[in-house]
Amino acid sequence: MNDKSDANIDLTNADSFPFWSRDRIRFADLDINGHVNNIAFAVYCESGRVHFRETLTARPKPGEKTDFVVLKVSITYIQQGYYPGEVDIGTRVLKLGNSSCTMGQGLFCDGDCIGTAETIWVYTDQTTGKSMTMPDKMRNLLSPYMRGRED
Amino acid sequence: MNDKSDANIDLTNADSFPFWSRDRIRFADLDINGHVNNIAFAVYCESGRVHFRETLTARPKPGEKTDFVVLKVSITYIQQGYYPGEVDIGTRVLKLGNSSCTMGQGLFCDGDCIGTAETIWVYTDQTTGKSMTMPDKMRNLLSPYMRGRED
Amino acid sequence: MNDKSDANIDLTNADSFPFWSRDRIRFADLDINGHVNNIAFAVYCESGRVHFRETLTARPKPGEKTDFVVLKVSITYIQQGYYPGEVDIGTRVLKLGNSSCTMGQGLFCDGDCIGTAETIWVYTDQTTGKSMTMPDKMRNLLSPYMRGRED
Amino acid sequence: MNDKSDANIDLTNADSFPFWSRDRIRFADLDINGHVNNIAFAVYCESGRVHFRETLTARPKPGEKTDFVVLKVSITYIQQGYYPGEVDIGTRVLKLGNSSCTMGQGLFCDGDCIGTAETIWVYTDQTTGKSMTMPDKMRNLLSPYMRGRED
Repeated sequence: MNDKSDANIDLTNADSFPFWSRDRIRFADLDINGHVNNIAFAVYCESGRVHFRETLTARPKPGEKTDFVVLKVSITYIQQGYYPGEVDIGTRVLKLGNSSCTMGQGLFCDGDCIGTAETIWVYTDQTTGKSMTMPDKMRNLLSPYMRGRED
Repeated sequence: MNDKSDANIDLTNADSFPFWSRDRIRFADLDINGHVNNIAFAVYCESGRVHFRETLTARPKPGEKTDFVVLKVSITYIQQGYYPGEVDIGTRVLKLGNSSCTMGQGLFCDGDCIGTAETIWVYTDQTTGKSMTMPDKMRNLLSPYMRGRED
Repeated sequence: MNDKSDANIDLTNADSFPFWSRDRIRFADLDINGHVNNIAFAVYCESGRVHFRETLTARPKPGEKTDFVVLKVSITYIQQGYYPGEVDIGTRVLKLGNSSCTMGQGLFCDGDCIGTAETIWVYTDQTTGKSMTMPDKMRNLLSPYMRGRED
Repeated sequence: MNDKSDANIDLTNADSFPFWSRDRIRFADLDINGHVNNIAFAVYCESGRVHFRETLTARPKPGEKTDFVVLKVSITYIQQGYYPGEVDIGTRVLKLGNSSCTMGQGLFCDGDCIGTAETIWVYTDQTTGKSMTMPDKMRNLLSPYMRGRED
């Protein structure tokens, strides 16, 4: 079982991402300075993550017993985002553990990276709340996303 | 100056709207039943309204002394909205008063109307907070939007 | 069955309301002008409405077959709201129809009314999506809220 | 100038925090599973952070030339949050660098930690977008918060 980090990936480089989503910046996303607010960056990352998750298998239903649960989200703010505009969200797998999957994301406006994110998902038995070994089927679905689009 | 309502407009009919915007339904817009939540409908209407406002003249800057201020928003919920998807937002002028502008909007998913809205804007001196007569220039910019796309 | 409106209720008067909720204004509720944004007013009304609904009977579970569904929400913006602060949300019943309940709400900051709302709930069979006669039990729970706190 | 981390602070322990804020969990904060959604955790952290920032000095005005800017936010999700309820937000300083301040936060519901966060603020000249040495006055205001409430 491979537990190594796919280290030194540059998440500000669009070529690092094999999977893409898009969100539209809303007026409601602006803060008192007229910039896209910090929370909206987290929303864009979630949009990309859910899109990615649903591409792997059908969207888990509410109450589904086992699935990935978000353990940690780290967002780095690189540039201001502006309205109106769209944000392209790149997503990839950085690391596959026994029960966890670490994803890397980049947020891009007109090609410029405005933020990056790392998220740790843990495969969890939601009845007991305990982490469990990820099924091989899931691991096999995730593995191809450990590469960038040019690798 | 015409102060009559452009009555009996069917806001569930896409042909009623000369101006269109689009928003992307986000996972974050869903409620505990898995439907687009009530608040998100209000956000989509705002997205269309701000887009429309900015098309007329440059976006008013924070602190600008005179501009339209929202007095009232009424939203009718017609159908559930679903994720993933996009929402097409039709906007038109229903009525032009001396200081007020009533807008009509329709929210459409794949051609089906999921909601409608009426919003009253009042032209306001933001220093005093009092309504004032809308400038002719603004009235002339709004008038063409009192027709649907097929009229 | 009484279908008359409990007309001429002044929703800007705190004495009109028998039921109270409270929400905390968040920094995230501010718009680019530093005021509480229009959408947040809708959120405060929802907070009061859900609180009121849950006080009547246990919160309906996702998938529950019959319950009130929001048909229409109309919000009137009266004054700017400011951060930090709290908002007191008054809720009452304005009108009880055969299948519908019209609620009135007032939003108050330090005693000043910053907005009012009217919401129409329709008792709905969620399997068919059709309105249905409200059960007597529900009507009896709602009736006492047709009075203000001083009546 | 001290640049060492105030290491090994347990952010799940309420005694680690000298500064407290409170937010009210909203119905609008729930996800499709009926739990407080991931984004709301980020909002609660922001609420605490802004409250803390405003306690130090007057709230920076839009366009203020130098102030802290958020560089990175990392949130760890520990337990589900439920509605209705309130969340107590503990905030402290973990580390003071030359231009940066790392804050630690804990989110508590009825005494149970549901999440923790670390945020890096960078003192920035917003005209040039470049980091700059934090003024001594600001450093002196932040230093007392490097201790827990029992230290």
